[in-house]
Parts: sequence; C-alpha cells; structure tokens
Amino acid sequence: MASLSLSLNKNPNPPVTGLFPKQDNLNRLATKTSAISLNKPFSSKKLENEKTTIMFTRSSVSSTTSTHDYRKSDAVLSHDHPHPHHHNHHHVDEATLLLQNEEDERPLREIWREIQGSNDWEGLVDPLNSCLRREIIRYGEFAQACYDSFDFDPNSKYCGTCKYPGAHFFEKLEMADRGYKISRYLYATSNINLPNFFQRSKMSSVWSQHANWMGYVAVSTDEDEIRRLGRRDIVIAWRGTVTYLEWICDLKDILRSADFGPDPTVKIESGFYDLYTKKERGCKYCSFSAREQVLAEIKRLLDYYEGEEISITVTGHSLGSALAILSAYDMAEVGLNVVASGKKVPITVYSFAGPRVGNLKFKGRCDELGIKVLRVVNVHDVVPTVPGIIANEKRQFQKYIEETMSFPWSYAHVGVELRLDQSHSPFLKPTKDPGCAHNLEVHLHLVDGYHGKGKRFCLETKRDIALVNKNCDLLRSEYGVPSQWRQDENKGMVRNTDGRWVLPERPRLEGHPPDMAEHLEKVLMIKRNSNSNGGVHGTSSPGLEAS
Amino acid sequence: MASLSLSLNKNPNPPVTGLFPKQDNLNRLATKTSAISLNKPFSSKKLENEKTTIMFTRSSVSSTTSTHDYRKSDAVLSHDHPHPHHHNHHHVDEATLLLQNEEDERPLREIWREIQGSNDWEGLVDPLNSCLRREIIRYGEFAQACYDSFDFDPNSKYCGTCKYPGAHFFEKLEMADRGYKISRYLYATSNINLPNFFQRSKMSSVWSQHANWMGYVAVSTDEDEIRRLGRRDIVIAWRGTVTYLEWICDLKDILRSADFGPDPTVKIESGFYDLYTKKERGCKYCSFSAREQVLAEIKRLLDYYEGEEISITVTGHSLGSALAILSAYDMAEVGLNVVASGKKVPITVYSFAGPRVGNLKFKGRCDELGIKVLRVVNVHDVVPTVPGIIANEKRQFQKYIEETMSFPWSYAHVGVELRLDQSHSPFLKPTKDPGCAHNLEVHLHLVDGYHGKGKRFCLETKRDIALVNKNCDLLRSEYGVPSQWRQDENKGMVRNTDGRWVLPERPRLEGHPPDMAEHLEKVLMIKRNSNSNGGVHGTSSPGLEAS
Repeated sequence: MASLSLSLNKNPNPPVTGLFPKQDNLNRLATKTSAISLNKPFSSKKLENEKTTIMFTRSSVSSTTSTHDYRKSDAVLSHDHPHPHHHNHHHVDEATLLLQNEEDERPLREIWREIQGSNDWEGLVDPLNSCLRREIIRYGEFAQACYDSFDFDPNSKYCGTCKYPGAHFFEKLEMADRGYKISRYLYATSNINLPNFFQRSKMSSVWSQHANWMGYVAVSTDEDEIRRLGRRDIVIAWRGTVTYLEWICDLKDILRSADFGPDPTVKIESGFYDLYTKKERGCKYCSFSAREQVLAEIKRLLDYYEGEEISITVTGHSLGSALAILSAYDMAEVGLNVVASGKKVPITVYSFAGPRVGNLKFKGRCDELGIKVLRVVNVHDVVPTVPGIIANEKRQFQKYIEETMSFPWSYAHVGVELRLDQSHSPFLKPTKDPGCAHNLEVHLHLVDGYHGKGKRFCLETKRDIALVNKNCDLLRSEYGVPSQWRQDENKGMVRNTDGRWVLPERPRLEGHPPDMAEHLEKVLMIKRNSNSNGGVHGTSSPGLEAS
Repeated sequence: MASLSLSLNKNPNPPVTGLFPKQDNLNRLATKTSAISLNKPFSSKKLENEKTTIMFTRSSVSSTTSTHDYRKSDAVLSHDHPHPHHHNHHHVDEATLLLQNEEDERPLREIWREIQGSNDWEGLVDPLNSCLRREIIRYGEFAQACYDSFDFDPNSKYCGTCKYPGAHFFEKLEMADRGYKISRYLYATSNINLPNFFQRSKMSSVWSQHANWMGYVAVSTDEDEIRRLGRRDIVIAWRGTVTYLEWICDLKDILRSADFGPDPTVKIESGFYDLYTKKERGCKYCSFSAREQVLAEIKRLLDYYEGEEISITVTGHSLGSALAILSAYDMAEVGLNVVASGKKVPITVYSFAGPRVGNLKFKGRCDELGIKVLRVVNVHDVVPTVPGIIANEKRQFQKYIEETMSFPWSYAHVGVELRLDQSHSPFLKPTKDPGCAHNLEVHLHLVDGYHGKGKRFCLETKRDIALVNKNCDLLRSEYGVPSQWRQDENKGMVRNTDGRWVLPERPRLEGHPPDMAEHLEKVLMIKRNSNSNGGVHGTSSPGLEAS
C-alpha cells in the first residue's frame, strides 16, 4: 500500500482552488476528505469497501454488487489506451482513478450561470467539467423521457400520444426524484410534409387524426432541488425520433424566413418551421401551434414566478434538437425572457444529435440574442451533417454565398460543440448502424466517459451502461444486456375483468388550457411593443394568433 | 318477441337424451332451464343481460362489457355463410345461437373415457362435441404454457430454460385455477442434429451447455378438479417451436427402428428418435435422456397414485406433438400403463400441428397398443405434411412399398384427425404466412369456432380472440390487438438495489431427482418381464439405463 501513499504524496500539483482550471482533469489532486481516508493504512479488503461507498456518487469502475463487471472492461481499456498514471498494482490503480475525478469546485447553485453557458462554456468542455457533465446528462434524460413515454404502437388508438398523464409522468419514468413537475404537454399537427416523422394509429377510432405529442414543459418545484440548482428551472423538452432516420429524407433543405423577428434574411429550414408553426383548426390538441403553446406556457410561468431567479433550459434530441433551438431563438426574439424588472432570464439549449436549423444569419442572430446552445454530437452520426451538405459553417465563403447570392441551401450550426466518438468507448461494439450512432442514450453514455480531446474514456457517474441498449444494439455482448430491451409487458395489453386481453383505456387527454389565449395575448403585446421600438415589421408575426 | 317463442315451439326435434347424437349441433333443442327462461316474455334489454350472464360459460358472440365488438364480426359472418336459422330480428338471432349450442349431456366425470377417445372419438368430431372442444382447448393450453414460459432470449444466460420455477409455473401463467401441479420438468440435450430447433445463449456463462427445457409432467391435485374430471389426470406437455419452422429443414426424413419394442420394422424419424433418447453424460439436466426422464416420472406417479382411477394425457404442438406421440407409444410399448391390478391406464394424445412420426407399422403398433391420438391440424399448415412427402398414408400401395421395399421414407399419421381451416374464421385476415398457419393459439381459436364440416364458424367458449395474436399477426386489424404481443416488460430486465438494469438471477434449476434411477430401474423390470413374455429382444432397450 506504500505505493499508493507515495503516489499521492508525490503529486506535485497544489490543491485546486480556482473555478474550472484548464489543467487536465486526470492530474487533479484529491479533495481533503478523500486524501485523508486514502492516506490511512488499510487492507485491500477495506479499499474495496470504501470504493463501493464512494461509487454511489462518482464511480468510474464497477460496483462490487453489480452483475456487470465493469472492472473487466476497465482493465481491457488500460491496455488499449495507455494511461500516464497506470500502476501495476490493480487496487492502487483504482484508487488513483477515483482521485483523478475529484474536483475542487463550488456547488452548482453558485456556478449555475457558467454551467448554463454564460461564458459560452469556456474552459468547461475540454477537459469536460464534471458538474457540466452531470447537467448535460440530467437534461439529456429529460429529452430521453420523451421517448420512454411515447406511444409508438400503431395498433393503439393512443398512438402518437404520451403514455402517461402529466401528473404521473416523472413517477412512471422513475424520475420522481428529479424535483420537477410537468406544467404542460406540447402537441404539433402531423398534417405537414414530414411523413416519416409522425406516428399514426392504424385504428379507425383514434384520439386525434392530426396531433402528435411533441414533448413537455416542466418546472422545478422541489425546494431542495431549487436550492441545489440555485434557481427555479423551467425545462422544455422536445421529442425527436429514437433511432429511425427516415425523416431526414423528408427535409427539403429549403430555407425560409423565420418571420419571428424583424430581419427577413434570418432563415430556417422550412420543414422545421412548419412543424413549429402549423396548426389544425378544430383539433383540441393543435388548434394552437406548437409555437403558440410553448410561448403561452412560458409566458404564464414567467409571470407566475415573477421576481424569482429563473432559468429556461430547452432540451431535445434529433428533430427535437431543431425544435429546441428554434423555440429558444423564438422566445428570445419575441423578448419573452425579458421580465418585468428588465432582467433577462437566461435561455440555454442542450442539443443532442441535432441537425442544422438555419442559415448563418440565423446563427448570428442567436448569438446576438444571447441564446446559449451546447451541441452534443457523435462524429459517427449523420444527422448533424444535414441540412447544409452544399454550404455550411465548415466551408469557406459561406457568408459571401449567403449574402450575395441569397443561396437557399446554406446552413450553419449554432453554439458550442461537444464532439464525442463512440469508437472511444470500450463498452461499445464496432458497428456502422446509423440508428445506434444517432441514439440519445448512446450520446449520454459517451458524455459520461468523455474527459477531453485525446483523453482516455472513463465512466465518471454511476450511470448504468445497460441504458445504451434501451433502444439499440450497441453494448458488447459480454455485458449480457439484451438489445432493444425497452418494452412494455405484453405491449401494454392487460386482462380486463372479463379475463380478456385489451389495451386499456387511458384517462382523457387534456387539450389546450382555457387560459391559453389570454397568455398568448400577452406574448403578442410584448411582440408589438418590441416591433414598435425599432422593429421593421409593423404587423404581428403571422405565426401567432391569440384566438 | 313472438317470433322467438314461435321458433322455439315449432322446433320439431324432441329433447336429446342420448349421448353424442350424430345430428347437427345447430338443430339441438334447448335444455329445459334455458328454454324456460327464454320462453318467458322479456325485453330486448333483458335478453342482453341474460346473454351476458350465460356468456361466461359458452358465449358465441360478444360480451357487452368487452372492448372487442365480436357481434360486428358475427354479423359479417352471417352474410358470408348463410345460416339455416337466420332470422331478421337480430336479438332473436343471438338467442337462437345460444340455444344451438345447448347440449344435453352428462358431465365430464361420467363420459371422460369417451372424451379421451376410448371409442376413437366416434361421433364426437363432426359435429364437434362441445365437451370435447373444451377438453381439446384445455390440453392445448397446457402445451401453449410451454411457449409462454420458455426463455427464448439469447442474451439471457438462462436461455433455453423455463422462466419460472416448477412450484410457481401455473401461477405465473395465470393457470393456477386449473387444479394441476408440476411434478417434473423435462429436458433434452441440444447436442443432436436439429440445429434450428434449440435455443442457445450467446453468453459465455450459461446454465447448461447442452440442455434445453422440453416441457413438463403435471398432475391434477385439486379435489374439485379431480371430481370434475372423474379421475386423476397426469399431463405430459412437450415443447415445440412457436412459429419458426426452420427445424423442418433439419429433419433428415430417414426412418430408423424405434427399438422400444420387439418389432424392428416399427420405425420412426431418426431426428425425433435422437431428441427423445440422446443424453449427455456429466450434464445434470440431461445425463438421463428425455425418454428416461418421462418414463421414470410416470412410473413414480403411477406407483404413488396406485389404486386410483388415472388417465395419462400427452399434449404437444409441432415438434412437441412428435414427442407426445413418441412418448405415448413408448409408455404403452414398455407396458408402463398396465398397473398392479392389471388394469390399463388409458393414454391419450392431443396433438396440435404435428408432423408424421413413423411408418405405417408404427401407426399400426400404436393402434394395437390402444393409444388414442387426436390430431388437430390446420389445412394451411405445412408441418403436418412432413415427413413423408414421397410416401404417406394418403398414397396408394404404401403398405406394399413399406413391407416389400423397406422404403426408408414412408410415413403415416397416427390417430383421428380434426381438420380445421383458418380461412373459415371471420376474425382472421387472409395471409400466407406459414408461421401463422402453424401457430398453436390459432389452432385453439379454430377449435373454438369449429362445429363440423361445412358448418358455420362460430365461437363457442369465452376464449379471448386476442390470444391469436400472442405470437403472430393474424387477427383482423379492426380488433385493435397488437401483433406478437406476448413479451416481458423490458425483456425481463429489472433495476437492482444499485439502480442498475439487470437480468435477475433465477433460483437454482433442479437437476435430475435423486430417486430417478430407482424408478427407472422399475421401468426396466417391466420391460424385461414383457420381453421374456414373448418379446423377440432378450436384452433391455439400448435407450434405457438405470444408472
């Protein structure tokens, strides 16, 4: 055990006291507590025990009680990726790994603005700050909840809805401990030209001919969680597609004016625009557009929680990421986040595997408005490369092409990129399956193990690797996790009192709330004021109507 | 309502008092009780209520509380298949349908020998006797239980086992009310040449390298059920394949001597022989062959219940049907069913979608030994046509070919055929899918609606049509039943105390019981005695060893 004390005592770096030092995560010194417990003489048996206890907060290797032997994989890894601090003694190596992950940092409540991107995640992404990692995963799980709760079954008359009523949403998803409550479900009309995106029931009697559930608005309501976060957080989560990528082919890649603001040269992909703004008169779920639903709800919540410290966090995967960026832009462009005191509520987007949304002007306007977008991408995923094959932010002269030629197929990504590579995870098998590379759970796994460019992949949180296979087949077979394992018992069929197997009726779905028009009217008022204060458009946006 | 009383009073047939009259089921008169209640004046509302109550025992149409509207389909049907007693008044029609299914019959306990085939089901199959129908379905469900409980998941280290311990088997399958208890699980070695039949785990650490669970022996233990049955019933259920038919291609169609008896010209397909007789030294589940396991267990039970009225019922679907016939033949050939008193315990086989098992000599020997086989087949299923494409019981000169030429590819079906046709069920959509045509649940649905050759398809029991889609996609979409709906929640993954998703460990599987050799020795003694009493073989059967 002397070797361990030695390696600890020999560490030349002083304890880190500053916030987010740019030095390598792996070189960090232990916090005082851990250092003390590890410097005491102990048997290897004792180390095992301590490891198990520590593990609940930030295990990088295996739990001794788990059936998955992660240590095995970690051992494999230390051969594949030589590690500067590699010791021959296995226990020492594990202890060192734990120490590497120690961070001297203030709690989230004190640094939440930086974590939400106030400094454009400067110094937080490489090496990846562990507090930011936890937040990315937490918001990623809010987006994943849209998949885990969505009814994909075309034999169900509820196909295209959320399987759970809002009041039980987080409880049904075993996320009740998150401290959030659903405040509104969001719907969109499927009556637009994205035929491969929407789920349609094969049944003749269905809940709606047009609507598809598109996500939710939730608010942190638990006092402990609000204290931990340092603010009240409003989450908007947009649903995308789990693995199927057919909708990409439906994108026409044609840009159109994002007529939410004064500048007509700010343009977005027309399919995303339609999804966000189209509505269906006579449908109780989408007689208001997704846009109107989300703006009205956010206005309502900002008014309700007026005077509190608030953040708006928009999260989405795949097509949901496009909606996340679009709605974040919209809120800022409309001026919704400027509250009575004149303060600006920060708007942050956690985007996973998202496509490009608009042109270079759109990107510029997002930056100008102060929207913070963290884009988590897997280099093997094709979705972030579309649209914009012909002209995008990586090509030269994009600005020239766009401004001079009004070229309608020029796209640019918004925000800061967190670039991951699934081939770096030793838990995953090599595959060219585009669905796996696009999968949200795979992204969250990669975030968990990412430490920085060129850094060794090493799981940092206790996040379960089995989640990777929830909707795909990517984990190496030695972990014994079935592929595509997320499924309902008997596809949701239950035996009724007659003993017959039936898809049970669900509680009535809530349509638009009665006070929606009223809150939307307030949004329109902000917009009219901002337009009269220098906007080029005198009329209200064509996408918004209060009645 | 006058029309109903009229139609009842006008019925020219006298009340049926004899057992199993050959006249058309549909012409039967109502039993006294039903006739009384139906002759009273009543509102159509009341008829609805009475129908619902009656329905629990023998509904042919819909339950008013059910979400499936079977009446709709029944209406469709009455157009497709003109019905001699078709009335214009819908309620009257329904009442008549109920009356048609009335049977004046003694209870099962008095007629069980005939129902089990003592008179080769003479007069019971066309029209189909409703007591026999219920028994066919009941035994079919014992065979279906082998599928519903089997672990097919190659990612599970328990792949190839029964998912439930024997003590909880019927309870887990919601069959606790059947009044039976598992007495023994049956295993076979997969180390034979039927590569597409066995399920193998992809895992490195598995419960067994060789064994596959093949079914079970169960005994009626509930006193009410024994009273209802009129005897203690021993069920042997053999597992087959749910829908996949690949194993057919593995059959080499080559006959070999079924060396269980004295006559070497009695031959069976060599793959079935191997499956039934091969074993694996050193494997705790198949160091005894399936054959030895079942003979020893039946011997044990017959000794244990000596002096009681007993029946042996063997049931199986697909390849399980071949094992059912083979094991029934074996028990009779060995003389296992001749008990101390000299009485013969009747052996009955309910075979579903079974292939041919042996040659014409085999069939003859089965008949000679008094085994009763009821073969339920769907004319659209290919399995009952194999083996024996070249020579079978339908061709001329089979006896000549077999005896003179020792032709090794001549097969014959055993027993009485109940020939069903899925195209007669208005609940099923037209499809050429061979898996659907072979599916056991489809067969049980067809039994439920079958009344006799040329008779209208009409569901007789309260059996749920949703079961048809359990493992296939055959129900018309208007019933809103998902296809292939039988599945475990999250493929059996559960969250452990660490919050990780794992396939839970299962209780240790029981290997061969310690007293098996002892019971097998007793079987061998019977065999030696029967051989010395005129058998041509002086030695014991090569397939049987007591240690």
